[in-house]
Amino acid sequence: MLLTRTACMAHDAADPLAALRARFRLPAGRIYLDGNSLGALPLGAAAAVHDVVDRQWGDDLITSWNAHGWIDLPFTLGARIAPLLGAEPGSVIVCDSTSVNLFKAAAAALALRAPRRVIVTEAGNFPTDVYMLEGLARLTGATLRSVPAEQLVAALNDDTALLMLTHTHYRTGAVHDMAALSAAAHAAGALTLWDLSHSAGALALDLAGDGADFAVGCGYKFLNGGPGAPAYLYVAAAHQAKAQQPLSGWMGHAEPFAFEPGYRPAAGMARWLTGTPSVVAMAALAAGLDTFEGADPAALEAKSRALGDVLLALVAALCPALEPACPTGSARRGAQVSFAHPDAYAITQALIADGVIGDFRAPNVLRFGLPALYTRFVDVWDAAERLAAIMVDGRWRDRAFSVPQKVT
Amino acid sequence: MLLTRTACMAHDAADPLAALRARFRLPAGRIYLDGNSLGALPLGAAAAVHDVVDRQWGDDLITSWNAHGWIDLPFTLGARIAPLLGAEPGSVIVCDSTSVNLFKAAAAALALRAPRRVIVTEAGNFPTDVYMLEGLARLTGATLRSVPAEQLVAALNDDTALLMLTHTHYRTGAVHDMAALSAAAHAAGALTLWDLSHSAGALALDLAGDGADFAVGCGYKFLNGGPGAPAYLYVAAAHQAKAQQPLSGWMGHAEPFAFEPGYRPAAGMARWLTGTPSVVAMAALAAGLDTFEGADPAALEAKSRALGDVLLALVAALCPALEPACPTGSARRGAQVSFAHPDAYAITQALIADGVIGDFRAPNVLRFGLPALYTRFVDVWDAAERLAAIMVDGRWRDRAFSVPQKVT
Repeated sequence: MLLTRTACMAHDAADPLAALRARFRLPAGRIYLDGNSLGALPLGAAAAVHDVVDRQWGDDLITSWNAHGWIDLPFTLGARIAPLLGAEPGSVIVCDSTSVNLFKAAAAALALRAPRRVIVTEAGNFPTDVYMLEGLARLTGATLRSVPAEQLVAALNDDTALLMLTHTHYRTGAVHDMAALSAAAHAAGALTLWDLSHSAGALALDLAGDGADFAVGCGYKFLNGGPGAPAYLYVAAAHQAKAQQPLSGWMGHAEPFAFEPGYRPAAGMARWLTGTPSVVAMAALAAGLDTFEGADPAALEAKSRALGDVLLALVAALCPALEPACPTGSARRGAQVSFAHPDAYAITQALIADGVIGDFRAPNVLRFGLPALYTRFVDVWDAAERLAAIMVDGRWRDRAFSVPQKVT
Repeated sequence: MLLTRTACMAHDAADPLAALRARFRLPAGRIYLDGNSLGALPLGAAAAVHDVVDRQWGDDLITSWNAHGWIDLPFTLGARIAPLLGAEPGSVIVCDSTSVNLFKAAAAALALRAPRRVIVTEAGNFPTDVYMLEGLARLTGATLRSVPAEQLVAALNDDTALLMLTHTHYRTGAVHDMAALSAAAHAAGALTLWDLSHSAGALALDLAGDGADFAVGCGYKFLNGGPGAPAYLYVAAAHQAKAQQPLSGWMGHAEPFAFEPGYRPAAGMARWLTGTPSVVAMAALAAGLDTFEGADPAALEAKSRALGDVLLALVAALCPALEPACPTGSARRGAQVSFAHPDAYAITQALIADGVIGDFRAPNVLRFGLPALYTRFVDVWDAAERLAAIMVDGRWRDRAFSVPQKVT
């Protein structure tokens, strides 16, 4: 039995998270289903950033590094992200980009497991993760081995230094079993490194309980930290004393302002810092983290799952030409659903023109993000209705919708 | 003959750059001589950042990557920095931190000059540069050789892959002869990599004319880009087709949105990008670059030099216990002067308490930045007068001024 729009409105009325939507400014007249690419604007972000720029930088200038705690921001923000990851206290910092942090963690893991030098990853893993591992391999002589998901465990052996995986697949939304894969890696004597970019803020995570060794992720998707927001890095407490990373800049020195001639790594997570992080960008990320105040990751995951189930059911009923490209059954799924179609690009563009913002992922996937903090069941219903209309009238065949955009 | 305050005011009245000070908001009642650590707030910064956060992110969300040119910002900002560096068009991008960019450039230079594997640098070079090179050396088996400035040329030989130098020394303000050292490096078959953090926006630079191969530098000092602003990276046109860097993230891929399984470097400077850069941070940097509109780097250098000469003369006359720790004669000097004293830390703190913000650099240096865009001759006179009063009454011996701050 297919849901009606009225039933979706009833779902929204009964949703215990519904009030959190008021923490965002959402664009009028559009349905935004791309928060897994760029999170929506938190109401407090503009004021928070303005305060840092106008008052802290403008009035207090260099003294703000102490007076306004700028120097502590990588740690204070990391401490606020840790509960979303199920990470132990003092194990997360904010700095650099996901790609740069991935390089640091992968290099550190290789060093911890020397002379092993194979990194195993999933074929079709998020490209930047693969590209960064390729760069590290070229530089160090390590070997990168990409295998299909179902062959990951078999690929682990006594050459394997590191299993690097993206927890939620960017295209399919499929979620790896972190506990099982970590256990398999450890059984083979290898470490694990997880990219949580499509998981943190969307799913209930338990890095500490699942035995993850390293993790990284981005601040601008489900964490709502703004375009190009700083990333985060997790190191399990057990590795913090011994692990060292090669991007050993001054902010990670034991005494950055002693200006010593040689590098000495700081204790704890501080050694994972490299250069001076953007304070302005961290102010926006802080506002993004404010939007999670009081929100239980398990409740967020359950709501996104329910939103996805509704969208899948509506599309199955109304748009038979669209093939689900994400888990539809009992497998765990990220806060996104996706559909395959040979003309996915043009369909996405036609849908955007009709006010429903999803995105396209090459070669043939329409992807819809469903952040629980601000997505309503009625949004999903309306999006599905407009998608169905497009599929029926075929307007996406208009050539204007096939013109490639730089970023999609 | 010592300058009078009236003479300084006359200097300001005759200063052709005097009007540029109105482009900044400077703190009332204080004299800011630390713009070489954190540049002052450009008047337009708060509005520029607000527009990006509130209108572009808030209203246009993910579509802003195209609609507001976010995707092009590393290049559009790089093109605005290029003239300040004397860099050829299309040779500068903005991304990451100075430290991260240094790692990329040094690794690329090593690869270009393989099997050579020695990096020569100056003993006492800015610590983060040394620390990053140490990290690269540990990872790749390269060797870092630090020698005193006067032995640099002699240290270059047929093992040398790279000469890495900071153009203006962070503590002494001494400026290297880029043309002569580049020529010496090239004669030995080596490449050069320059850290311009204390030079760009302060001195007239001619990277292309001086034969520099690579350069990096930071956005938050003389470029006025805000705390932790993104950094820039220069690659000489001659190397752009061949040089490759190891932090090979998706933004540097030939087709970032094709999501190809393997890395293919983009043409031109785009391959030097790694992860997604902070758009909010770049908006502040853009406002910083606006403050250079119509300002000739040679005129900026000349004015800073004159300001420094005045400060050196006043301190020599009024504060005999303070020893100059920077070039005082005909040698080229950055837009800063410094003085040595065993109690430099406490003196700096006492001076800050009296409204003159300079900074301390370990172990014994008081440092004063003199950005020509907003520093007046009368500021220098007033700062010297207050410094002299402190040296005479000895108030810096009060224990309160010896308490270490986290950041100084």
